Amino acid sequence: MRDPVLLLTEAELRALVPLDMAAVECVEAGFSALATQAVAMPPILRLDIPEHRGEVDVKTAYVPGIDSFAIKISPGFFGNPAIGLPSTNGMMVVLSARTGLVQALLLDNGYLTDLRTAAAGAVAARHLARADARTAAVLGAGMQAEMQLRALALVRGLTGARIWARDGAKAAALAARLEPGFPVTVAATVEDAVAGADVIVTTTPATAPILPSAFVTAGQHVTAMGSDAEHKNEVDPALIARARYVADRLSQTARLGELHHAIAAGLAQAGADHPELGQVVAGLVPGRTDAAQITLADLTGTGIQDTAIAALALTRARAAGAGQSFKV
Amino acid sequence: MRDPVLLLTEAELRALVPLDMAAVECVEAGFSALATQAVAMPPILRLDIPEHRGEVDVKTAYVPGIDSFAIKISPGFFGNPAIGLPSTNGMMVVLSARTGLVQALLLDNGYLTDLRTAAAGAVAARHLARADARTAAVLGAGMQAEMQLRALALVRGLTGARIWARDGAKAAALAARLEPGFPVTVAATVEDAVAGADVIVTTTPATAPILPSAFVTAGQHVTAMGSDAEHKNEVDPALIARARYVADRLSQTARLGELHHAIAAGLAQAGADHPELGQVVAGLVPGRTDAAQITLADLTGTGIQDTAIAALALTRARAAGAGQSFKV
Repeated sequence: MRDPVLLLTEAELRALVPLDMAAVECVEAGFSALATQAVAMPPILRLDIPEHRGEVDVKTAYVPGIDSFAIKISPGFFGNPAIGLPSTNGMMVVLSARTGLVQALLLDNGYLTDLRTAAAGAVAARHLARADARTAAVLGAGMQAEMQLRALALVRGLTGARIWARDGAKAAALAARLEPGFPVTVAATVEDAVAGADVIVTTTPATAPILPSAFVTAGQHVTAMGSDAEHKNEVDPALIARARYVADRLSQTARLGELHHAIAAGLAQAGADHPELGQVVAGLVPGRTDAAQITLADLTGTGIQDTAIAALALTRARAAGAGQSFKV
Repeated sequence: MRDPVLLLTEAELRALVPLDMAAVECVEAGFSALATQAVAMPPILRLDIPEHRGEVDVKTAYVPGIDSFAIKISPGFFGNPAIGLPSTNGMMVVLSARTGLVQALLLDNGYLTDLRTAAAGAVAARHLARADARTAAVLGAGMQAEMQLRALALVRGLTGARIWARDGAKAAALAARLEPGFPVTVAATVEDAVAGADVIVTTTPATAPILPSAFVTAGQHVTAMGSDAEHKNEVDPALIARARYVADRLSQTARLGELHHAIAAGLAQAGADHPELGQVVAGLVPGRTDAAQITLADLTGTGIQDTAIAALALTRARAAGAGQSFKV
């Protein structure tokens, strides 16, 4: 009577859903739905396990017209690297939006989260960075530093990038490893990295601003994607007041994103009606309105991105006959 | 480096974890931990999909000393029976509390939820019903009507039970099917069912009280387990004021349980310090204090029960070599 459950591994999912323009447009369509349809996206469920330096976020969203929805489980356990395990991992459960039956188990170890997070950065840059943006500055040298730069290169004709990280050796290793088709150099300071860059992407777990407002100049676009918790903060709150500010989800960024700290500092108003990325994507509010504007996208990660990318993975897996099926 | 993921089906889980005294004591220990340990149990994540008459609850809890924790996904889609599918189903994901890595996928289709829910009813009766309770009244004739009665029979020496349901034919079919070792009869009315019963269990999705306060008499114990959402209500709010009231989790019952309606009716005080079942189990507050008292357990379902029963299932599966392992 009911369909079997499809199980897909990280290796299968990496092959099925690479970081490409289709992934960016899948996530972009999700943001558009968030602004234009009766999307249901409840607040994040968050479990903290401080005695093991662990935290788990569970996100979900239902989009009318998408037959499946994802429940995404994202653990972060920050003692893992000391025992040879990655700090972040997790999986997605995909359910039918019509029956609630489990359709698929995406054992991605966090890959799809990395992917949809990078894709959201590309969506933000596509709608907010100047069309003639050529140079990128990436702060941070982790997985997202790499994926954000690769995603950005899909939507803007980059001719160069600079990487800065607190750990200079890590930045050098990333710059050496990346082969995006344009030169990637290491910057000794944040100021060196961002001076003259057209797009700045912050990808760190910083808990105090690493990007001073004074370093950001007319026409630059900033995507701040590192903060997804109350205590995280990458961008000088003063920059929020200077920039055209766009949230992925305002109710989240006011609590978990850069906006949170600007409100706390009295530099942004709690409850103010800032635009959301989905509204910009859908054309309901303008993105960048002039070349000299500073734009800032505050990305905390939304369930809509998970549902969008999971539905794409499931559709492709079925078409390819990938994965293993289980009668349950 | 990392362990494979263990996948267990409903059939395997039913065989590994039947409804028995060990299951009741596993859930009882979970409640005790809730009262005595630094348990982390965030609010339920709830997604509603009204256009498909669907809802999904996600629950979780971390208990110090239990090496695993469950994230439980419980969908209810109320149009499913019309297309030959059960309305409730779901699964649990079990993660390591030390590393956050996924340890097991319990594809139970809701069986473990049914089990831990019934077990909580037995825990409530064990600590609140008179020790000499012999007769049970069950309101409702669904899966929980059956399982609550079977669970109750584990903790009290029942000599008879009566079942009432809005659909008399369903009550008759359940009474005929059950073979608990004592007579089970069908009651024509709620009043007939509960008159003289020692324990009353309400197991319906009622949205208006089915159990009038006037029907409940000295010495009876009531377990109300049907309400787990704002709009559900099985018990006359006036009964809350008369009874020794015990919540599974006060922050939940004040929002989702019978207490919610008593507060709304002005018959209970918002913010009042009612005892929780775990406090009674742990001996921190008394349960029933005299034989003539009316006791009432308000059960909305907690993540602690899910983590407790999932950890038991995983321990037994590993010991038995059950399930299928996947490298991820």
